[in-house]
Amino acid sequence: MGGDHAPGEVCKGALAACSKYPDLEVVLVGDGSQIEMSIQGAEPFVTKRIHIVHTDEFITMDESPTVAFRKKKKASIRMVMDMVKSGDAQGCISAGNTGAVVAGGVLILGRIEGIDRPGLGVPIPLPNRITLLIDVGATVRCKPINLYQFAIMGEIYMKNTLGVKSPVVALLSNGEEEIKGDEVVCEARNMLAGGNMEFMGYVEGKDIPLGVADVVVCDGFTGNALLKFIEGVGEALYKLLKEEMEQRVLPKVGFLFLLPMLKEIWGRFDYEKYGGTPLLGVNGVVIKAHGRSKARAIDNALKVASDFANHRGVDLIRDGLDRGGM
Amino acid sequence: MGGDHAPGEVCKGALAACSKYPDLEVVLVGDGSQIEMSIQGAEPFVTKRIHIVHTDEFITMDESPTVAFRKKKKASIRMVMDMVKSGDAQGCISAGNTGAVVAGGVLILGRIEGIDRPGLGVPIPLPNRITLLIDVGATVRCKPINLYQFAIMGEIYMKNTLGVKSPVVALLSNGEEEIKGDEVVCEARNMLAGGNMEFMGYVEGKDIPLGVADVVVCDGFTGNALLKFIEGVGEALYKLLKEEMEQRVLPKVGFLFLLPMLKEIWGRFDYEKYGGTPLLGVNGVVIKAHGRSKARAIDNALKVASDFANHRGVDLIRDGLDRGGM
Repeated sequence: MGGDHAPGEVCKGALAACSKYPDLEVVLVGDGSQIEMSIQGAEPFVTKRIHIVHTDEFITMDESPTVAFRKKKKASIRMVMDMVKSGDAQGCISAGNTGAVVAGGVLILGRIEGIDRPGLGVPIPLPNRITLLIDVGATVRCKPINLYQFAIMGEIYMKNTLGVKSPVVALLSNGEEEIKGDEVVCEARNMLAGGNMEFMGYVEGKDIPLGVADVVVCDGFTGNALLKFIEGVGEALYKLLKEEMEQRVLPKVGFLFLLPMLKEIWGRFDYEKYGGTPLLGVNGVVIKAHGRSKARAIDNALKVASDFANHRGVDLIRDGLDRGGM
Repeated sequence: MGGDHAPGEVCKGALAACSKYPDLEVVLVGDGSQIEMSIQGAEPFVTKRIHIVHTDEFITMDESPTVAFRKKKKASIRMVMDMVKSGDAQGCISAGNTGAVVAGGVLILGRIEGIDRPGLGVPIPLPNRITLLIDVGATVRCKPINLYQFAIMGEIYMKNTLGVKSPVVALLSNGEEEIKGDEVVCEARNMLAGGNMEFMGYVEGKDIPLGVADVVVCDGFTGNALLKFIEGVGEALYKLLKEEMEQRVLPKVGFLFLLPMLKEIWGRFDYEKYGGTPLLGVNGVVIKAHGRSKARAIDNALKVASDFANHRGVDLIRDGLDRGGM
């Protein structure tokens, strides 16, 4: 029931995924009659693997996640997490309130033993690779151990869902030189340098869009600012282009020629392809899809969730913790 | 001697500023003979207000700023700060090592009484206004008092150099709701709400490019990541466009039509217009120009430095501290 296009697009995405992956079964939790309507007319070989669980409690975008989570025992996001906990589901997806997804992950599923705080990792599609930026808001301020564990979890995720053979991990700092960074970042650097992963050291903000690493680790405050900043830049550029288009005649011709090129370029940055943001560090597969997700994004989120579940991603994180990477 | 185009473009910028502002005198500190060469041939009514102070010590980009600052007593950046301290100059500009500029400001000029830590503020040109993002790296991790003081200093700077009548101040957080932010950001919010300025509360990363405030306050780690991230996005987009251009035929035509439009749009984001990054909170006017600064950027930095000195900006900050804004 969460996100801008629920439940219609969410249901469409579930149908699409079930028709592609014959082993996949999807439980849709939300307003039963709305869901029924959204999936009617689909092929029986698909709908037989779609199950509906009705509830009429939802957590909205403006509710305080932790408060709402404790009060609304039948909230759709809560029921979904309960199913993961009981083993009735191997993973869950939500396009709703991010805070509620994080709170639910921690309160219902609990943290993996040894994990201090969970991390949300966003796969950013760049021209040469996909970079997972972790954390983007689950843990606002971090201790060194948090950054270290984000790196381990991010590396395992990139291996097991996006198939990166030996992910390169970097730590965001305010400069590339070793003398940069505050005590927290500096200590995390030392911990990572002693681990088992391909750790390239510090990177700066400018290195992220240039695609220098598969995993870039930062605290949730900074990651959240960066992620939302990208959205804002896109919005501002679009406004500017529109203004310019309206004021000029000649470039309109140019714009028509340029459109296929721009489309292809934006297409490369299309987050829908990579299926949302995993909440890493909890006892279960939890994927947060973007609030603007349409069917294709949900379809991909289901693929990613089932891949991570099939690879036993949570167990891999548990093992990886002891080894400082895989 | 600092930056990518020194001393040639720096000298050219000084000449340009002196020819426009008849009250301006500029002291160029660096390699005397190189500077001589760069300014020769200029009009006498300009060169009579250009003074050269020779030195052959410089702090390079890869040196540890604090170490270099203590060792190299005759480094150009240090001599420049000494002149500000003694009153021989009313302000100074450098396009060199940012860390050295910050270290120099604190070690030589000292912090303004009551200021806990200095802040570097970058004016970001947006379509509807210029937004000062402060801090972008002088104070990596902040206490609430630091964020509060950045706001006061940023507000005074925007009033007195860019002529914004009653600057709107915002605090960066990981969400707009009051429940967001960690303890540091939350406490800073309370301090700002009780001050005398037009404080609009929290903003998110996405609000910055949309130009919602004249001053956006954040810690130096986050501000640095955001600022460098913008640079990286520009670089990545440019690379992509170039690649596309090389692979396609049709859109090349479009690109020719579109070029004037793109030029105008990038032109609006041109940082050179706003003359660099003030180091606020030290006893003197210190402007850090971008390492890529050409003559026009230096010219504008000189204008901004002399405006802030003429408005007695440092005194205004001292007064503003007591009043919680101007």
